[in-house]
Amino acid sequence: MFQKLPSFQRLVRKLQKVPFLASKNLYKVAIYFLTQDAEETHKFCDTLMQAKKNIKTCLRCYNFTESLDGICSICGSDKRDKSIICVVETWHDLFAIEKIGDYQGIYHVLGGTLCPLEGIGPDDLNIESLFKRIDKTTQEIIFATNPTPEGEATSSYIACKLSDLNFKLSISKLASGVPTGSSLEYMDRITIHKALSGRRPF
Amino acid sequence: MFQKLPSFQRLVRKLQKVPFLASKNLYKVAIYFLTQDAEETHKFCDTLMQAKKNIKTCLRCYNFTESLDGICSICGSDKRDKSIICVVETWHDLFAIEKIGDYQGIYHVLGGTLCPLEGIGPDDLNIESLFKRIDKTTQEIIFATNPTPEGEATSSYIACKLSDLNFKLSISKLASGVPTGSSLEYMDRITIHKALSGRRPF
Repeated sequence: MFQKLPSFQRLVRKLQKVPFLASKNLYKVAIYFLTQDAEETHKFCDTLMQAKKNIKTCLRCYNFTESLDGICSICGSDKRDKSIICVVETWHDLFAIEKIGDYQGIYHVLGGTLCPLEGIGPDDLNIESLFKRIDKTTQEIIFATNPTPEGEATSSYIACKLSDLNFKLSISKLASGVPTGSSLEYMDRITIHKALSGRRPF
Repeated sequence: MFQKLPSFQRLVRKLQKVPFLASKNLYKVAIYFLTQDAEETHKFCDTLMQAKKNIKTCLRCYNFTESLDGICSICGSDKRDKSIICVVETWHDLFAIEKIGDYQGIYHVLGGTLCPLEGIGPDDLNIESLFKRIDKTTQEIIFATNPTPEGEATSSYIACKLSDLNFKLSISKLASGVPTGSSLEYMDRITIHKALSGRRPF
């Protein structure tokens, strides 16, 4: 019955591309837009296009920013310790660390991980710009890539390149082990192995 | 950290209103739009506004239509039996019945159910227009409202009003009982009661 509703079909196809929208709900979301006020849909599109226009990535760390100078609120803050750079894969990871409110250093968003099988090499990530940021004032690089094969390969690659630089840098990575509140019983072998080999004095 | 990203906040607030988008995924969907090509986002908005502009409700049955004459493909089809009108609550219910491919009559979409507690009375639904559609050629009205208190109250209200019309109409409603593939063990009392009282000769 959709042959006669080409605009509807086109809308559903566009919604199909939106992540986290289950395919069983696509029609319902399409109908939500079709049955709301035209004014409201117009505002939705307007907000989307405005956000798209205003939000850029920070010229230094590739975090999102709306500042006209192109520098994000973290890089531009006087309260942050510019000598510590935390390297994360995506903005989601930056946000996860920011939420705890503990970390006082700055960030560098790589924009993904190395993945030769998908053709993602060092030039496709913000790696070169990380090397350019590092100077005499930089004291520590913390790798906060995810503990996946790709995440670990990416941090290993960068750490290896960093050792070629003529700066005295302390290079660290997030501790790997059993997460708080979980049970050893349900942990996989590699997690327990890492928790054991990375054990700390009581 | 969002105080410095007002456009981002506005976008997330708009996405909050979209049904079937879990709040934990709102940021990810916002970032999907922010990181895709501007051209792609523009096309998305364009498709949405076009659909909004082109798709109307059928002048007869309130199904969706894109025809310039304002009549949907079902009402406009020569193959459908115009003497049988199936009354449904929403377009989702119409779609559910259309999918089985069996029903050859036409529809009437009420646009919801009566719900005095929420202030939805007969004038807020497409009830009056149903009465206006019924003429000498109409033979049967099938109520396919959902078997909820509101759905049943709505069909009872309309059925009661229909009996005042001077037409010989056969009025029916969907059978209520144990759905195919389910187990009696897990059915509620009312469903079993209805299945029993509505039993049919073998």
